[in-house]
Amino acid sequence: MSQQKPNNFSKWYLDTIQKADLFDYTPVRGCIAFKPDGYEIWEHIQEEMDKRFKETGHRNAYFPMLIPESFFQKEKDHIEGFSPELPWITEAAGEKLEERLALRPTSETMIGHLYSDWIKSYRDLPVLINQWANVFRWEKKTLPFIRTSEFLWQEGHTAHVDEEDARKETMQMLAIYKEVVEGLLAIPVYDGQKTPSERFAGAVDTFSIEAMMKDGKAVQAGTSHYLGTKFAEAFDIKYLNKENKHTFVHTTSWGTSTRLIGSVIMVHGDEQGLVLPPKIAPAQVVLIPVGPWKKNPAIMEKLDEIFAALKAEGIRVRLDDSDQSPGFKFNEWELKGVPVRIELGPRDLDQNQCLMKARDLGDKVAVPLESIIDSIKKELETMQTRLFDKAKAFRSENSHTHIDTMDQLEQHIAESELNETIPGWILAGWCGEDACEESVKEKTKFTTRNIPFNPPATKHTCIHCGKEAKHTVWFARAY
Amino acid sequence: MSQQKPNNFSKWYLDTIQKADLFDYTPVRGCIAFKPDGYEIWEHIQEEMDKRFKETGHRNAYFPMLIPESFFQKEKDHIEGFSPELPWITEAAGEKLEERLALRPTSETMIGHLYSDWIKSYRDLPVLINQWANVFRWEKKTLPFIRTSEFLWQEGHTAHVDEEDARKETMQMLAIYKEVVEGLLAIPVYDGQKTPSERFAGAVDTFSIEAMMKDGKAVQAGTSHYLGTKFAEAFDIKYLNKENKHTFVHTTSWGTSTRLIGSVIMVHGDEQGLVLPPKIAPAQVVLIPVGPWKKNPAIMEKLDEIFAALKAEGIRVRLDDSDQSPGFKFNEWELKGVPVRIELGPRDLDQNQCLMKARDLGDKVAVPLESIIDSIKKELETMQTRLFDKAKAFRSENSHTHIDTMDQLEQHIAESELNETIPGWILAGWCGEDACEESVKEKTKFTTRNIPFNPPATKHTCIHCGKEAKHTVWFARAY
Repeated sequence: MSQQKPNNFSKWYLDTIQKADLFDYTPVRGCIAFKPDGYEIWEHIQEEMDKRFKETGHRNAYFPMLIPESFFQKEKDHIEGFSPELPWITEAAGEKLEERLALRPTSETMIGHLYSDWIKSYRDLPVLINQWANVFRWEKKTLPFIRTSEFLWQEGHTAHVDEEDARKETMQMLAIYKEVVEGLLAIPVYDGQKTPSERFAGAVDTFSIEAMMKDGKAVQAGTSHYLGTKFAEAFDIKYLNKENKHTFVHTTSWGTSTRLIGSVIMVHGDEQGLVLPPKIAPAQVVLIPVGPWKKNPAIMEKLDEIFAALKAEGIRVRLDDSDQSPGFKFNEWELKGVPVRIELGPRDLDQNQCLMKARDLGDKVAVPLESIIDSIKKELETMQTRLFDKAKAFRSENSHTHIDTMDQLEQHIAESELNETIPGWILAGWCGEDACEESVKEKTKFTTRNIPFNPPATKHTCIHCGKEAKHTVWFARAY
Repeated sequence: MSQQKPNNFSKWYLDTIQKADLFDYTPVRGCIAFKPDGYEIWEHIQEEMDKRFKETGHRNAYFPMLIPESFFQKEKDHIEGFSPELPWITEAAGEKLEERLALRPTSETMIGHLYSDWIKSYRDLPVLINQWANVFRWEKKTLPFIRTSEFLWQEGHTAHVDEEDARKETMQMLAIYKEVVEGLLAIPVYDGQKTPSERFAGAVDTFSIEAMMKDGKAVQAGTSHYLGTKFAEAFDIKYLNKENKHTFVHTTSWGTSTRLIGSVIMVHGDEQGLVLPPKIAPAQVVLIPVGPWKKNPAIMEKLDEIFAALKAEGIRVRLDDSDQSPGFKFNEWELKGVPVRIELGPRDLDQNQCLMKARDLGDKVAVPLESIIDSIKKELETMQTRLFDKAKAFRSENSHTHIDTMDQLEQHIAESELNETIPGWILAGWCGEDACEESVKEKTKFTTRNIPFNPPATKHTCIHCGKEAKHTVWFARAY
């Protein structure tokens, strides 16, 4: 895919996820059906995230999906940010409702309303709650998994005695997101702070992890917000502190969504289809009999044995004994991104070996049958690391740290268009003025992704106005 | 609670679940917030159900929540059954929609539409898919957990080559429901078939598991439907069979919901509050220091040690070292239904023992500290069984198998009202006529629960008309 022309990327993406049977379109605008192979990727993400949330003291809860219109009015920035995208319930059970109910785009308002009742004393704090739920944002332009009218996510909502504690939480959750996205999805991310214009509607500070897709565009893969006392003031969430004084809580919220499914495809996929990191692949290993295997029952006996042994190890394995040709099967399972393929035919069996093919490598290797389980386990581990390293190398190749003026940027973009290469990300200085950020966006469609905590270089002048840079920022086109 | 006057039951229920902090009311009509201790019960149910669904070859998927109005028109019985309860989206992102979208009350229509595209050949069958989701039924009368406008559930939707295979699936899932509800929630249920008037809207046959609450009323704890080819015909779901002929699939659907949370409270709770079966209790064990424990650091050291050992065993344990009095703590944790309480004070420590109290038994027992972990594990197991046995005995006491006429039934009800006892369930014959069933309901508010597969007796005459009984049926008042 590094050879892929950028214009073909979205066609490749849509073809690939459809052929791999991850989703289907539906008659409801912008809403997709998550088919089992697509949904299972989400289940593996959920499992890992949920484990880490619980290890850090969070508990799950569930809040109503419908939000009264008046709730949105309480936090000015919040309503401005979300009202253009809300679907509304106006009738139920044959009657017109007195007040319209929105389908939640996020739950700060409903949760704010409830927390104001649940939180009375410093003894009740911190409140550390997460919710797994569906949310709605009626977007104009949609793309399966990446941006859909209905999507699935988790949203954490916490309340704390003071700013210090709330900021610690905000950073802790961002760190967990980075660990899971890098460790489980093998997607390298930059963690950093959003500029004010890219903040969550109602946040004091928004932090994000940003990932580079194979077309060089960015995906915001997770966000963590320090909300200050804004929602506490809007919903009157106060506690009695140790000095017996009523005090506003400091709140946070943080979320990751099913757009991670789309990201993992866009980061690792290739011309043959999906390439799934072993940790999240619905099938990690596929066993395929080859040659005149039907005449030789020992082949299937051996494969059954390997199948059982892998299953016993907790490895997700499929055995494809259908009537299709081996070549057809190879294609099909490559398309689905299965990390490891094992082929066994009569000649292999005679030599007490089988062939093993890692999805992301060109060559098959002969592996002795006696150590096959260990070989597979090792390959799954090394492939997980290899995919991460490859993605990191790709990101590095396409991150540009020597573009310091608009002229240089526009020339870089013109060249990449001419050569049909991807423009990638630009690390550049920014003076901190909204106007400069906005102008870069207008001229180039590059937006600020985040102000990375650990930038690969430090910039001293604003890419737009040339004045002193307050921040070193990642600029990129984004999904 | 067996002593409880029936009229006080709903007050007891509402008080108990509120004091135990399981839920909160919200400003949206009939929608509750599931607080962590309530939601965690659902998480344990989900985990067990999901495991069994997957063991039997099912996979999870996710379908859009919004359903176009025209979809409901396609299956006549279905729209009749559900249309009175639907909330409608009529506007989104500032524009009026061309077609109204309902919030799903269940997903047969959306899934039927998609399956007609996904299923082409006998090779695609069976399709075995489950969804975990929120659903909406705008009910007039609501009760937290038991009947809410929005609730959480799982809905399985499968498609099969023929009736035999689909009916096998219907029965298999009903059996799984019975195993989980009896084994995990310690709630005995009767499995059986619903009468036609109580069928799911659009089903050929509906089967249910029915549970008796402590007020003698019934809760339908799970349903499994054989849908025949009704939805296949409505949505044109056909496959090419081995003889190359286009054939309608046979479909099933089956569901259990968060009403199980309410059921477990209503089956096991007592005057002191919740009594939670160990397998689903958010906290299985609570450790409480007693006596002058703050002066004796060895107490907390020992409790910390027990805490760590229980955690290592995967047991959900809390240590309450707050400043409240032991009596206050005992009440609080009893209210929350924690199965096992351990008390440790200086005198206990001197004797190398602690006190153990099972939530459902009156007496504390002294347990040697050296075998404390084993004692706790054993108590959790025996309590799980004991709660099931108690619930079964209660059900047996309140199941009446000698009432064979309307006179006897009306007299039985009058007596129970006079004595302030619960009328319970009635096993009676039924001729099979809707009119008889309807008349029993009008006169007594007793409805048919199901036609049990294994009734404790067989009835020969219809309780209403006295003619020959076609079925032996459980009649009860129901939630």
